[in-house]
Amino acid sequence: MTQEKFLCDIGFIGLGVMGKNLVLNLADNGFNIAAFDLSAEKVQAVIAQDEEENTTGKQRVYGCSSYTELLSQLKAPHLIVLSVPAGAPVDQVCENLIGAGIQPDDIIIDTGNSLWVDTVAREAKYKNNFLLFSSAVSGGEVGARFGPSLMPSGSPYAWARVKPIWEAISAKVNSETGKPMERTEPGQIITEGEPCAAYIGPAGAGHYVKMVHNGIEYADMQIICEAYHVLKDGLNLNCAEIADIFEEWNNGPLDSYLMEISVEVLRHHSSDTNTPLVELILDKAGQKGTGLWTAMSSLELGCPAPTIAQAVYARSISSFKDLRVQASSLLGGAEEASFSHDEKSQVIAQLHDAMYCAKICAYAQGFQLMKLAGKEHGWTLDFGSIAKIWRAGCIIRAVFLQSITNAYDRDEKLENLLLDDFFIKELNSRQQNWRKAICHATMQGVPIGALSSSLAYYDSMRSETLPANLLQAQRDFFGAHTFERTDKPAGKKYHVEWSTKDKNTILIDG
Amino acid sequence: MTQEKFLCDIGFIGLGVMGKNLVLNLADNGFNIAAFDLSAEKVQAVIAQDEEENTTGKQRVYGCSSYTELLSQLKAPHLIVLSVPAGAPVDQVCENLIGAGIQPDDIIIDTGNSLWVDTVAREAKYKNNFLLFSSAVSGGEVGARFGPSLMPSGSPYAWARVKPIWEAISAKVNSETGKPMERTEPGQIITEGEPCAAYIGPAGAGHYVKMVHNGIEYADMQIICEAYHVLKDGLNLNCAEIADIFEEWNNGPLDSYLMEISVEVLRHHSSDTNTPLVELILDKAGQKGTGLWTAMSSLELGCPAPTIAQAVYARSISSFKDLRVQASSLLGGAEEASFSHDEKSQVIAQLHDAMYCAKICAYAQGFQLMKLAGKEHGWTLDFGSIAKIWRAGCIIRAVFLQSITNAYDRDEKLENLLLDDFFIKELNSRQQNWRKAICHATMQGVPIGALSSSLAYYDSMRSETLPANLLQAQRDFFGAHTFERTDKPAGKKYHVEWSTKDKNTILIDG
Repeated sequence: MTQEKFLCDIGFIGLGVMGKNLVLNLADNGFNIAAFDLSAEKVQAVIAQDEEENTTGKQRVYGCSSYTELLSQLKAPHLIVLSVPAGAPVDQVCENLIGAGIQPDDIIIDTGNSLWVDTVAREAKYKNNFLLFSSAVSGGEVGARFGPSLMPSGSPYAWARVKPIWEAISAKVNSETGKPMERTEPGQIITEGEPCAAYIGPAGAGHYVKMVHNGIEYADMQIICEAYHVLKDGLNLNCAEIADIFEEWNNGPLDSYLMEISVEVLRHHSSDTNTPLVELILDKAGQKGTGLWTAMSSLELGCPAPTIAQAVYARSISSFKDLRVQASSLLGGAEEASFSHDEKSQVIAQLHDAMYCAKICAYAQGFQLMKLAGKEHGWTLDFGSIAKIWRAGCIIRAVFLQSITNAYDRDEKLENLLLDDFFIKELNSRQQNWRKAICHATMQGVPIGALSSSLAYYDSMRSETLPANLLQAQRDFFGAHTFERTDKPAGKKYHVEWSTKDKNTILIDG
Repeated sequence: MTQEKFLCDIGFIGLGVMGKNLVLNLADNGFNIAAFDLSAEKVQAVIAQDEEENTTGKQRVYGCSSYTELLSQLKAPHLIVLSVPAGAPVDQVCENLIGAGIQPDDIIIDTGNSLWVDTVAREAKYKNNFLLFSSAVSGGEVGARFGPSLMPSGSPYAWARVKPIWEAISAKVNSETGKPMERTEPGQIITEGEPCAAYIGPAGAGHYVKMVHNGIEYADMQIICEAYHVLKDGLNLNCAEIADIFEEWNNGPLDSYLMEISVEVLRHHSSDTNTPLVELILDKAGQKGTGLWTAMSSLELGCPAPTIAQAVYARSISSFKDLRVQASSLLGGAEEASFSHDEKSQVIAQLHDAMYCAKICAYAQGFQLMKLAGKEHGWTLDFGSIAKIWRAGCIIRAVFLQSITNAYDRDEKLENLLLDDFFIKELNSRQQNWRKAICHATMQGVPIGALSSSLAYYDSMRSETLPANLLQAQRDFFGAHTFERTDKPAGKKYHVEWSTKDKNTILIDG
């Protein structure tokens, strides 16, 4: 392969689907790329696709056959983007780049799905060799090609250099409408609008925030699936009817990418059977880990995130298909019921409000989790900005996120979205419908773990007094764990000598 | 301190509340103990208490002032029990015993709350120095003194030596009634009945099983607390009325230690205010980690355990007291409602069945989790035996556990308790009441995360078809994650080219 010597703006390593699309996105936005992959075929593929799409008349992507060649093709200090699988491959590439002569001033941006703690460790490990920066990328392959939501974190010095590039290739939001500005064709670029790329914080913060994004995504998807289930089995509607309802809802506060694609899915017929394809898809959900990591982090940090955890468990339960089939003939559910047209309309309206309220709770959980994680790790996170960059490019993109940005604009220290005026109003006007929708599904035997755990969250969060008083008494009874008293100064710990005749209360600590 | 030279059966290190009580329990059962603690006061305290309680006329506990003295006081090969805090202190004691000359044939039994993976690592680490065995101990201080539930694991050779001791000091169950045989006085021993000590499996298995016990305990407690909350705020009953209801329920299938102590707690008045003490206890629940470890393990292993996770989250939410107080005046709940005597009686009966069904689901989750963990780690667990040793001595002790043992006696390979004939009958006859209780609480604004997530679990597990078909379609749409089809052979993976005009379905793999 002979190539004219020319110094590129950016080196790119890892040309899988995500990597290839990011390269083409960068190229569309005027950056010259030196591209390398262990597979020469993948290098050829990206060059071929670029040649096909490129209308500028100038070469934009230069293939490299080694790490050394890659470095020699770049302007110094070098800027290299990685899109390789998380874990060992990232370290392998870093070591190879060190061997090839990367310098302390050079920047490597890891755009893979690295676990955030690995990113923190890696930044420290390589600090004398090069500057490791990282950026979570949301939006799947289409996002990578035409505008992802980008969550960069690490050294502010590196960010100063990365920022114009990241803002260029990211998704854009129309600042008037808050809606994504669609880019769908190669060569097309959008230079106006608000970019969905914002500096998140120190190393690891961006990947943590992306992890929570995915946890929320699990909840969003599960809420839609439960609504579909209620409409299908609770009201006996067919796919076309459900698609019409979802389409209507997609014009209101539930407007979101996930609703939009659900409508498309429900309307899609399989050419080989002429039925809605979705009815032929096996009901066993896969998962890749980020949802369960979010739930695990919430448990560790003591942050309630039941809607997210329920969404993860719903996927686990779906995988036990044989068990479910067996149990379905053994365990009873709803009594026979039928509903008039008016009753159906009522349930549908109630279900809409249940979805919206549950969605608010899921986001309240995710944002509180980021707040507690920020506190734990010393990150100063800008939640208004995070909500903003999720308005386009990523999977949970929705106009709804503007309401969250507005909430943090009103109070940047807001402890929980449930305390924001806008969400208070929304919840108060819809919570009765939410309850009725849950009762309907409960009596119809339709499982609604996300909708109902959100309500338990809501009702717990608005309970001045929870039954944890009895729980603390139980713990003191069997384990002498002590308790505080509401009629005594805070912090004073008491214990009852439960096994004695007099059961005296004694002051333990204070 | 001068002592007659006498070789003891057991060395004991760590004389905190648990350690002291285990020493006295061992002494009551005829074992001579050489006891050591870094605090000479604690050594003196156990000797003093033993002298007070000892009616045999012979010395039973010998105080030691060093590790070397401890070893010299023991019959060889030495058998040493540790009751020290989990983590670094365990390794510290092990290193000190190595320094003092412990031998490869000697056995150390760790009875602390070690994380099970630490136990596995420790067994390997010390295998050339001594034999590390471990045993989880449940039942708190009273259990330690008068009969705990013991979950030993590690080398079968060590177990052969530990078994007679462990069976002697453990709680006992009357084999006719399945009820605990109470031991309440120093000097009293019970030589009949079935011992609550059984070998669990290889290193770590016992602590894992104890962790799941605690996860179930969280769920049991939360279910009781939610029932209390419904009775208190949903039906406006007072503590005395609730205690009467719980006492009645404690004669039926809900019969358990936790119900029994809840009755005692609800009836206990504070001498300084003359109100039920429980009403003065601050509603912020503490936790020590085992519940959340159980939930985290369930997430990692892909085992649905939503009731356990909800119980953990309920404790987290309780800790946000200030936020709750603030939200309570901002967010709406139930509409005004009053209930006739008959309606109240109905709700109470429905609530009973809801508790029982939710409890069955919590145990089904815990036992399935142990099954999946056993598979993951290569442990052959005997679930009938595990349920048996939980019938007395531990916190979740209940006659109910006999039903679980019976289920595994009928089918030792039972995949989930929901598939057992007995539980199928119980659930089918009560599930309608369960649903009604949930609707009542839902409309009354009382949070019931454990009761409702159990129902979602039940309804999901008995769903032949879950809405995961739509979820898989969504995942395929935005991430090309592929799906299987019910009209095609299992294992074949399909993808729809969603972004193209024709949206063709293509076979990806198979």
